[in-house]
Amino acid sequence: MTKALDFSKFLSEEAKRREPSPLKSAFKYFSDPNIVFLGGGLPLPDYFPFEKVVAYSPAPPFSNGIDAKPTDDSNTTVVDVLKNNAAAGDVSLAKSLQYGFTEGHTELLAFLKGHTELVHSIPYDDWGLITTVGNTQSWDATLRTFCNPGDHIIVEEYTFSSALETARSQALKFVGAPMDDDGIIPAKLDEILTNWDPAKGKKPVLLYTIPTGQNPTGSSIPTERRKELYKVAQKHDFLIVEDEPYYFLQMDPYVAADGADKEKPVAQTHEEFLKALVTSFISIDTDGRVIRLDSFSKVLAPGVRLGWIVAQDNLLERYVRLHEVSIQTASGFSQSLVQGLLNRWGQKGYLDWLIGLRHEYTEKRDFAINSIVKNVPSSISHYVPPVAGMFFTVFFDVTKHPKYVEFGKDPLKVENAIYERALECGSLMIPGSWFKTPAEDAPPFGDHIFFRGTYAAVPLDQLELGIQRFGDAVKLEYGL
Amino acid sequence: MTKALDFSKFLSEEAKRREPSPLKSAFKYFSDPNIVFLGGGLPLPDYFPFEKVVAYSPAPPFSNGIDAKPTDDSNTTVVDVLKNNAAAGDVSLAKSLQYGFTEGHTELLAFLKGHTELVHSIPYDDWGLITTVGNTQSWDATLRTFCNPGDHIIVEEYTFSSALETARSQALKFVGAPMDDDGIIPAKLDEILTNWDPAKGKKPVLLYTIPTGQNPTGSSIPTERRKELYKVAQKHDFLIVEDEPYYFLQMDPYVAADGADKEKPVAQTHEEFLKALVTSFISIDTDGRVIRLDSFSKVLAPGVRLGWIVAQDNLLERYVRLHEVSIQTASGFSQSLVQGLLNRWGQKGYLDWLIGLRHEYTEKRDFAINSIVKNVPSSISHYVPPVAGMFFTVFFDVTKHPKYVEFGKDPLKVENAIYERALECGSLMIPGSWFKTPAEDAPPFGDHIFFRGTYAAVPLDQLELGIQRFGDAVKLEYGL
Repeated sequence: MTKALDFSKFLSEEAKRREPSPLKSAFKYFSDPNIVFLGGGLPLPDYFPFEKVVAYSPAPPFSNGIDAKPTDDSNTTVVDVLKNNAAAGDVSLAKSLQYGFTEGHTELLAFLKGHTELVHSIPYDDWGLITTVGNTQSWDATLRTFCNPGDHIIVEEYTFSSALETARSQALKFVGAPMDDDGIIPAKLDEILTNWDPAKGKKPVLLYTIPTGQNPTGSSIPTERRKELYKVAQKHDFLIVEDEPYYFLQMDPYVAADGADKEKPVAQTHEEFLKALVTSFISIDTDGRVIRLDSFSKVLAPGVRLGWIVAQDNLLERYVRLHEVSIQTASGFSQSLVQGLLNRWGQKGYLDWLIGLRHEYTEKRDFAINSIVKNVPSSISHYVPPVAGMFFTVFFDVTKHPKYVEFGKDPLKVENAIYERALECGSLMIPGSWFKTPAEDAPPFGDHIFFRGTYAAVPLDQLELGIQRFGDAVKLEYGL
Repeated sequence: MTKALDFSKFLSEEAKRREPSPLKSAFKYFSDPNIVFLGGGLPLPDYFPFEKVVAYSPAPPFSNGIDAKPTDDSNTTVVDVLKNNAAAGDVSLAKSLQYGFTEGHTELLAFLKGHTELVHSIPYDDWGLITTVGNTQSWDATLRTFCNPGDHIIVEEYTFSSALETARSQALKFVGAPMDDDGIIPAKLDEILTNWDPAKGKKPVLLYTIPTGQNPTGSSIPTERRKELYKVAQKHDFLIVEDEPYYFLQMDPYVAADGADKEKPVAQTHEEFLKALVTSFISIDTDGRVIRLDSFSKVLAPGVRLGWIVAQDNLLERYVRLHEVSIQTASGFSQSLVQGLLNRWGQKGYLDWLIGLRHEYTEKRDFAINSIVKNVPSSISHYVPPVAGMFFTVFFDVTKHPKYVEFGKDPLKVENAIYERALECGSLMIPGSWFKTPAEDAPPFGDHIFFRGTYAAVPLDQLELGIQRFGDAVKLEYGL
């Protein structure tokens, strides 16, 4: 058995203080047939006013697309979960609506473990997974578990502003990892850490990255670069937190509108699909220093508030202690209904769903990029077609803006002028500077600013209209 | 309009640091018909694989008891929530399974607000409520919002060990409020705070209390005493956090088995029921210094992971900022299904349910107490019939234990001997010392120890058997 390294040295003061409940020693008698257990404040399931829940869902293989409505027996998966005597593999309501199972329900954990084994290949043995109420909470729990106020953490130079806010309010400080079109540049991060000034405090304890379909840049870190980054983590001894909500929004390569659609290499079979996925950090994690945050939010629905953390068992145990005294566990309805669906779809049906999702996002991404090509002048802008995620970015050369000198050569003034003009024209994309990490040594804004758009949230006709209006605004601003 | 006082001085360093997301300024354009909004990473509801969920629940007025199974149209409430075009008052799945609504969904908040107005009478106007994922999380969020590491908080001398653990791991310290059969003794708490030694740090910032059906003691604070405690809070200027999961497990008065059952004063009508409820702290809160933690866990089911906080709006806003970067919001399935049920039951149907619950718990409590009278010798023990909650306690005089002197007059050794003996006899009740608050100046254990049992978690025949075996163990221990 290959064991993960001991990283208990990374635990925060708060995490070190956590102790299991003294009542745990009594709860081992809970199911003992010889003991009448009068120890726990559990309400009787007889008083749960839900005898059965039923969900109506589309059925694999989703031949008409994942957005085709289920109409009859042939294309409907009926998820009927009973209070008692639930189907094998289901989480009965008597269980899911009761206290307990902080780690998540056994049946759901088993499905997720099977799924993880299909997709990743974790190099050590003592890994596991626990459920959470979504990656925002997983990230909050991660910071509570590994960071003390005043600590530095590494984040991408531009990143998800909510993730920054979680950390900032906990009094953490940021090191911004320089990026290019392929995400974090390993050599530059190595350089920063090699030249770390101890006067700033201890070296960063973790790297937070959205490696696939990054928010906001839309970039994805290629496999080779992930391996280089992992070596940087080993050299400077920090944890890697890979926040991967967009992992299954990986797409087929972009082929321009004038290319022959039929010749696109499309991942169709389960084998092709799995092979086309980028290598995750946890798949190259020989040490057990990667904490993977996974979620159903972009794959099924955000409101299920159901995510999971994959990591070494010893570190997961500290999360469980935290969850016992905070969220307790994810919603029983969410667990029963999601597991009910996955239980009926099976691993293969779930892959069918993910393949369908890939198809949808590929189509939307292609549509968005084609629309940018058509509407946003290339003389002053550039873009990189994303290979994953919900976001595209368009970069602008500020020096070519007519008011560049009048604006005192301030790139943020150009950015704001474009943002305001786009609003006037009836389109909203988010200025890139809004996602800038407030690192102590952040370099000044360069000559290129960017805007983040999404092709995920609107139908194609609206997407076309939005980008067209944005292009009009840019032309007005640049006098083109 | 009567406004709550400004208690922003009570905010923790962490809570003061929280800022709204910069993206908020863009999101005001989200529903603007003139703007194509390409700003947010929201997946299309077309890709949520849930077209409809249906729950089968009992229907008011629950004439055959709340545990009677729904069998046909006459006694079944069918909660059918659609993805789109949901019934009026329902939370559609397109909304509940999407991002957003950190405070909770409008329809559910409206029901809860109506319910709160029926039950409580809050003396100021700018109060509100937000949903949480249950009181354990509400309590964690409360500590993050009002306490800095090293701060003291006041808790009952014996209290819920998980609530202590939440605070302990955040490096908080405890002041144990002395209790008698009616809960916290206001004069004693006043005395402790009046004699507060500033060398210990600043005076406590909040009181955490489970005023009704307290865990573990089963005590409930009478209305007059709540008013006295509120004055102590005003005098020493601290917040009161009332954790009230058992509020609707208030029961009719205990009448001994030999009393005439028929003469019990039973709360049957909605009016009688509401009138019989104890006055909450928030109903006497002229200042806006009470934070009320409410929950469906004991009323519907723990696994819905759905609670709510009632407090002044200005303080709730700080919780919302925390939730945005941690839990986000409660599960959409939980919100759609619980609101779907409440929407169909209506306020009156919900009161019917609560009256039914009161009836069940009254029956169980009476049964448990009658069984104690029968099985546990009164020569060495006493009990106080609880008027609310899930728990009963039996106190023992340790000085009468045959090995008292042999045990070095250590009450904990007597306690442990009874616990172990009860296990041998096949019954488990929890030793009271396990709930003792680890306060710095905690008095030593006195001559009376207690055990906590519950009448909530087992059917009546098991309850009888468990108490009978516990009584056997006690008789063996005491040589009776």
